[in-house]
Amino acid sequence: MNYHISGGKLLVFQEKEQLFSIEESDLYIKDKRISFVPFDTAETYETVDAEGMLVMPGLVNMHTHAYMTIVRNYADDVPFGEWLFNRVMPVEDRLPVEAAYWANQLAFLEMIGTGTTSYVDMHMYRCQSAKAARDAGMRGFIGRGLVGEDLYQDGERRFREALDEKEEFACDTLQFLLSPHAIYSASPKLYQQVAEECRKRGMLKQTHLSESVTEVQNCLSQHGKTPVQLLYDCGFLDEGTILAHCVQMQGNDLELIKMSGAAVVTNPASNAKLGNGFAPVLQMHEKGIDLCIGTDGTSSNNTLNMFREMGLLSLLHKGICGDCTALPAQYVVKMATVNAAKALGREGELGVIREGALADLVFLDLHAPSLFPNNNIVSSLCYSANGSEVSSVMINGRFVMRKGEFLTIDQERVFHEVQKVAEKYL
Amino acid sequence: MNYHISGGKLLVFQEKEQLFSIEESDLYIKDKRISFVPFDTAETYETVDAEGMLVMPGLVNMHTHAYMTIVRNYADDVPFGEWLFNRVMPVEDRLPVEAAYWANQLAFLEMIGTGTTSYVDMHMYRCQSAKAARDAGMRGFIGRGLVGEDLYQDGERRFREALDEKEEFACDTLQFLLSPHAIYSASPKLYQQVAEECRKRGMLKQTHLSESVTEVQNCLSQHGKTPVQLLYDCGFLDEGTILAHCVQMQGNDLELIKMSGAAVVTNPASNAKLGNGFAPVLQMHEKGIDLCIGTDGTSSNNTLNMFREMGLLSLLHKGICGDCTALPAQYVVKMATVNAAKALGREGELGVIREGALADLVFLDLHAPSLFPNNNIVSSLCYSANGSEVSSVMINGRFVMRKGEFLTIDQERVFHEVQKVAEKYL
Repeated sequence: MNYHISGGKLLVFQEKEQLFSIEESDLYIKDKRISFVPFDTAETYETVDAEGMLVMPGLVNMHTHAYMTIVRNYADDVPFGEWLFNRVMPVEDRLPVEAAYWANQLAFLEMIGTGTTSYVDMHMYRCQSAKAARDAGMRGFIGRGLVGEDLYQDGERRFREALDEKEEFACDTLQFLLSPHAIYSASPKLYQQVAEECRKRGMLKQTHLSESVTEVQNCLSQHGKTPVQLLYDCGFLDEGTILAHCVQMQGNDLELIKMSGAAVVTNPASNAKLGNGFAPVLQMHEKGIDLCIGTDGTSSNNTLNMFREMGLLSLLHKGICGDCTALPAQYVVKMATVNAAKALGREGELGVIREGALADLVFLDLHAPSLFPNNNIVSSLCYSANGSEVSSVMINGRFVMRKGEFLTIDQERVFHEVQKVAEKYL
Repeated sequence: MNYHISGGKLLVFQEKEQLFSIEESDLYIKDKRISFVPFDTAETYETVDAEGMLVMPGLVNMHTHAYMTIVRNYADDVPFGEWLFNRVMPVEDRLPVEAAYWANQLAFLEMIGTGTTSYVDMHMYRCQSAKAARDAGMRGFIGRGLVGEDLYQDGERRFREALDEKEEFACDTLQFLLSPHAIYSASPKLYQQVAEECRKRGMLKQTHLSESVTEVQNCLSQHGKTPVQLLYDCGFLDEGTILAHCVQMQGNDLELIKMSGAAVVTNPASNAKLGNGFAPVLQMHEKGIDLCIGTDGTSSNNTLNMFREMGLLSLLHKGICGDCTALPAQYVVKMATVNAAKALGREGELGVIREGALADLVFLDLHAPSLFPNNNIVSSLCYSANGSEVSSVMINGRFVMRKGEFLTIDQERVFHEVQKVAEKYL
């Protein structure tokens, strides 16, 4: 289907000023791409009335574990060890693989409903993330979590699964990453091996890094260096690397990340909720590190709502540094769109409305009470929106939600299946 | 109209344990009151199907300036002085009084839509807050901001306005406070006079206090004591006093507040957004101070969404103290309901579902993706809800929103009028 999007206001990123502006223009969508003028070759368009709407690039949730919706609110306000080892992990262990399919679909309901069109996922249930994302039409960047000493020996089963799902679910909207879990669950050797495989295969890689004080302390005493230095020395850090968390930065860490070209994903809700603190986002920004935003899994957040995450991020850091001009809305929205696309190697194609970009679009109702009056639309995306203003969502040129109705996911079925799983395994 | 609310789950506060539990019971509403059993005297009930819903007490926003919706997102990411003196205050000065009526109605759309049924307001436009609240059926605790040296001389006009609106808009859902603005705009003498008037008239009082470092420093150099000590010495602090902010606490401040019985309203978004920092909420809690939550005005937040405020509050303080068990959901929800009612002198009547309490009820859709699966409903109210789960809202036994439709406010008219004001005066 070709679309003619008519009468909306557009959120357009101005390269030169590195700022968003609001433009009034129609858009044309054909073969998943955006154009500001009608395509020569398109025969007919369905007109989409976007009067009173903001049409913006879909948000990119740069770090999550979508399957964790199943343990949303299952273990809150308990000590970290209790949360992870006694509550979440035992559930993960006893969940059947298929359950993850429905938990992922539930995650997509929430993501799509709050304007997220792309997400970076680290998962542990073979193929279910990819299958669910493909069926829902989500744009997924998916990585099977890898652990162990050696990628080709004790880490081999998971590595094989990562490659299998890459093969089996190859499609236009999915891309696959290699994802060593963390330095406390994967060895330096495995990180080296993954770096090598990624170079060979042209794949992106992601990992958790320097999330907690304990992780850094243990690394220092075990390896005599910080987690960042450890991965730098493994050759794991480069422009194809996505680092989640980076809360506890020391010494030369920021410099190493900057030099390597790796991107950092900050997860403010998760880091705060688990008592891990606040990442030095302002210092990273000053260094010129590519900064993106993630929600982490719903067990440590407990929502996948990127609007909440954007607001939280800016407020937190304004409060910490005592400067109300810190992390302005313009930059925070850029983190959730343009910066994310850069980190994913898809600059100019994702996270922007421009000629030839992929049609991942979110339609927001500008007459929502939370956004009104529209004194500054960019500002309202960071400080005022709660995600409920999202009316329609298009991914890869296809509507996945229209006027609040999900078109690719059977909502009632998802609730039914997730409920069954929760009753049986939680 | 009498109502029989059937099939819902109820959020009930258990006095003994000081914890909420989820109960399954029908409710009956007659003459604005709640009962768990049918009233003898009621002839007929309209049945309200609450299957799949959480029925909870309406949230209480304990500090805001509702008229400020007009300047939402109007001056973000600019230095504090620019924000207040060059942007917000000039607009306030040139706005016609009637404009505040529509700005208040817009605020109510957002409050009601996100589950707030009561709010404490400090305003500056004669009678418009009260008129708007009465027309919308909001439960308002309204105070005209008072400034000046002497309540009966230069402060006289505003004091007269405060008493006038109390007289003119007396009704079941409105209560009026006396509200000296702040120690930098009202004299110690005025605070003394207000305290005396409140005792005489049986009125509550509210003020901004110790919001910024500058305020405290100036007070120390001018009066040789902290703002808290200053007001304590004026006799302004007692059980009928509501203190907004209390961010910059020093020396004996917490002890004085505790001794006086005054309640503190923390406004985490506003304090962070303006770079004023974080109130010592955990220390206040340990002291046993009655703690409530406010959003402040939309110009420093920029939303009136109490669900966002609850989540933000808990995450912030968990992050600051590095303890993931700090400010648990159970306590945060209590702050926004039970504690607020106590501060307002309406304990047992507001903020709870119990026999004889006022029927201020919020119906949440438990099948919203953000709350599902319902592993821990209380937890989800703090960490997962974004307010869009609210389906219906009842205030004082009357539906003001039902299945997403506003029944007491003409939404389109509000947008139209606010738009006109914004175009003309902003």
